[in-house]
Amino acid sequence: MDELVSLCKRRGFVFPASDIYGGINGFWDYGPLGVALKNNIRDSWWRNTVECPPIGPDGEPVSIVGLDSAIIQNPKVWKASGHVDGFSDPMVDCTETKKRYRQDHLELLVPKSGEGLMYAFPENQPDLIAAKLKQARVDHSLFETVTLPEIPVSSYDRVVAPDSKNAGTLTPPRAFNLMFETYIGAIRHEDHKAYLRPETAQGIFLNYKNVLDTMRVKIPFGIAQIGKSFRNEVAPKNFIFRSREFEQMELEWFCPPDEAQTWYQFWKEQRMLWWLSLGINANNLIFRDHDADELAHYSNACVDIEYRYPFTFPGFGELEGIAHRGNYDLTAHQNHSRTKMEYFDQAAQLAAKEAGLDKEDIARKSRYIPHVIEPAGGLTRALLTILCEAFTPDETRPSKVVMKFKPNLAPITAAIFPLINKDGLPEIARGIYQKLRQKYTLQYDAKQSIGKRYARMDEAGTPYCFTIDGDTPQDHSVTVRDRDTAEQHRIAIDRVDEFLAEKMLS
Amino acid sequence: MDELVSLCKRRGFVFPASDIYGGINGFWDYGPLGVALKNNIRDSWWRNTVECPPIGPDGEPVSIVGLDSAIIQNPKVWKASGHVDGFSDPMVDCTETKKRYRQDHLELLVPKSGEGLMYAFPENQPDLIAAKLKQARVDHSLFETVTLPEIPVSSYDRVVAPDSKNAGTLTPPRAFNLMFETYIGAIRHEDHKAYLRPETAQGIFLNYKNVLDTMRVKIPFGIAQIGKSFRNEVAPKNFIFRSREFEQMELEWFCPPDEAQTWYQFWKEQRMLWWLSLGINANNLIFRDHDADELAHYSNACVDIEYRYPFTFPGFGELEGIAHRGNYDLTAHQNHSRTKMEYFDQAAQLAAKEAGLDKEDIARKSRYIPHVIEPAGGLTRALLTILCEAFTPDETRPSKVVMKFKPNLAPITAAIFPLINKDGLPEIARGIYQKLRQKYTLQYDAKQSIGKRYARMDEAGTPYCFTIDGDTPQDHSVTVRDRDTAEQHRIAIDRVDEFLAEKMLS
Repeated sequence: MDELVSLCKRRGFVFPASDIYGGINGFWDYGPLGVALKNNIRDSWWRNTVECPPIGPDGEPVSIVGLDSAIIQNPKVWKASGHVDGFSDPMVDCTETKKRYRQDHLELLVPKSGEGLMYAFPENQPDLIAAKLKQARVDHSLFETVTLPEIPVSSYDRVVAPDSKNAGTLTPPRAFNLMFETYIGAIRHEDHKAYLRPETAQGIFLNYKNVLDTMRVKIPFGIAQIGKSFRNEVAPKNFIFRSREFEQMELEWFCPPDEAQTWYQFWKEQRMLWWLSLGINANNLIFRDHDADELAHYSNACVDIEYRYPFTFPGFGELEGIAHRGNYDLTAHQNHSRTKMEYFDQAAQLAAKEAGLDKEDIARKSRYIPHVIEPAGGLTRALLTILCEAFTPDETRPSKVVMKFKPNLAPITAAIFPLINKDGLPEIARGIYQKLRQKYTLQYDAKQSIGKRYARMDEAGTPYCFTIDGDTPQDHSVTVRDRDTAEQHRIAIDRVDEFLAEKMLS
Repeated sequence: MDELVSLCKRRGFVFPASDIYGGINGFWDYGPLGVALKNNIRDSWWRNTVECPPIGPDGEPVSIVGLDSAIIQNPKVWKASGHVDGFSDPMVDCTETKKRYRQDHLELLVPKSGEGLMYAFPENQPDLIAAKLKQARVDHSLFETVTLPEIPVSSYDRVVAPDSKNAGTLTPPRAFNLMFETYIGAIRHEDHKAYLRPETAQGIFLNYKNVLDTMRVKIPFGIAQIGKSFRNEVAPKNFIFRSREFEQMELEWFCPPDEAQTWYQFWKEQRMLWWLSLGINANNLIFRDHDADELAHYSNACVDIEYRYPFTFPGFGELEGIAHRGNYDLTAHQNHSRTKMEYFDQAAQLAAKEAGLDKEDIARKSRYIPHVIEPAGGLTRALLTILCEAFTPDETRPSKVVMKFKPNLAPITAAIFPLINKDGLPEIARGIYQKLRQKYTLQYDAKQSIGKRYARMDEAGTPYCFTIDGDTPQDHSVTVRDRDTAEQHRIAIDRVDEFLAEKMLS
């Protein structure tokens, strides 16, 4: 992972935010190559979700519209959604060191005897634990390991906190809300408090009624949004995997309650297909169904698509969640805003009548608050996944590493090199560059040896390099070098456009 | 303007944020058609700035890279940039009504005699002024109108505030910082205070050094960014023109000090050309050079590109500013961060030596902190401009209004209609739709009369409607209806793709 982080900074994919001021924990800037790659992923999702959505079970494209809602909304939104009251992590403070910990991120050595001191440590620090035990001259085998939430708060007076020598310095856990707060207008008053959205999803629920009233959509349909969200994470970690400012790609799919299970399966499959279309190896992706005790109380089912990140290897970590949210969100907003979210389904009413259902069943099928299937992925997490997946060490190459992006995602589609910077070669190269730059993202480079130029493009993940050499003025052809195989072949200048167009489709 | 705002809501371009909760002043959500239009403008800017930048004075494309920096940065950034101390509006409070006003937004009726009460009003409210004078039974001709900043604070005891009957209720003006504040981490302490960026520009200056070190760029070059910014405006107004959350498109162009004036002229022309390329009538755009007293102390020159908005008609309002910022920003960040921003210009050194300059001049020309030309436009303001420009009342049409977007900006490129929903027409129409939706953003519509369908597309600004009619099964052609002329002609089904591709280029 360190190598990837280092390459990301060295080649302009991802920089620490406020780098020249020593950074700021949990925030990242996306450099020239990073923003190009991120935009390509974003555009693929938007194209495949909004502009050209997948074919539904009836053979027709499903109906989805786009949205871009504000990051700051009326604070009542977050009261209704449950985020003001529930979106929090339980934290404990150490009164001695003034350090703060997530309760479930502390591990505890508990004497098997049931008596005596217990020692707390940040999770996954076996070396720290061993050192502490050695220092305290106690035998590891006399202890068992639990997490802090597993012991009652009344036992905290026996707990020795990390970096502390005394027991009893940890406070009882307190909820710490993950939403960033701010104030609107000139006055700092509770009435003017607002929040930075912790998810883009609520912006969609807020506009469900507006979209229904203006866009002539019929259930089932979806509303999709890409945008930034903010979470005041206590412990941002793993590079851009868990950051405090991040980008989401969320779809809310509104459907009749009876069909929710079918659509849940549909979106589960579709989302996996999309991730595979980005060129991710199927072996590195899994579905992980949530256990019953992981589900929110209103949720009927939830599955994560997980990726095998370097920092979870050989295990997997979350990439996208597909949740069956029932009618929880629309009902909550209906109750808090007094706006009716009920849908009258004329087609379902007709079908129910024709099927000879009784009055009650007809009413139930024709008037309902739609159920929601929510495929919610992270754009910044997608970027991380594509970076991890593309990262291919290769000791045989000068660059030692090749970034194997799919051609349509690569930040630079092709490079144009004059082999030497004279004899008319630059003029031919500039001609090709000027003509094709209208259609593709190209890089022109005439500096240093051709080997060094290939190496730079391997690190940047540029799939094709076209070199204009001494034969070009005669045979009107150039060499094209394939990033993945490092093989070269000759191609007529006239065919370069066609060659690239074809590769971008695959 | 009211008609446009109403159409924007009715057709899903722009909704008030948190609409179902009564809204939130200064925030807007972009609906399905709005986000499509906004994305098209965004992509045009990005394409023309980053991916395929304009041709420079030497006949080669200029060098520009993209960036996407975090909204929340280390607070030291805003101290260095001057925003913590200087980014504020002077506000006055009324101690009676508890209302707050921007000092320069209050107009004052001052007795020409120099004695007696003065009456304050919100700006541009002649009716209010007339009513007040009538009520107070005083003669308008005895007064002259000034703005509040024009009178000394010592005279405030003679000022009658709006909605007040007594004089002397206005406080002296106080600075109110326009940056939204928040806190990072669990502790609400001054040390953890952070700000939402009020402009994307500083994120670029922060990364100038990182880009220079990683991207093999040479001066002159540019860094471009599109993203959200936030300003805690006291009085958001004019629809999405002045909102508290908005999107910017900013380019910082770094160049040798000697060339700054040339590049300032270059960008001034280029930016106007880009706005014209969006189809804006040249008569509705002007340059407005800033007067010397409008310029920031570090700025050598600044020009606004202004548009004739309905709410400024017959005058103009700001659309984009092109500023010559000197080396103010990089120098400020160099001083605060202790990071050297100096650039060693090898080419300039060589040229200076060859020109036989003396040692001092050679040093001056080869080592410098680059000067910056900043073309800074608003994406949300661009959206408003395109909406205003496209809005074309037409009483002869059922829709009464046509949105005349350029084909490549239109949210929906084309609509596909079967004239009647039977006789095999829907099948042909679906076939065309399914084939072309891979390339274009299409809408399929089989509902209601063809006239109503055209009317809907006129309001949505869809430039072309293809209708599959009774002749289609025989002659394999369809009618294409032009939005702007309402004229129709027949075109072979096989030629529809080519027809659209051509229109999208123009």
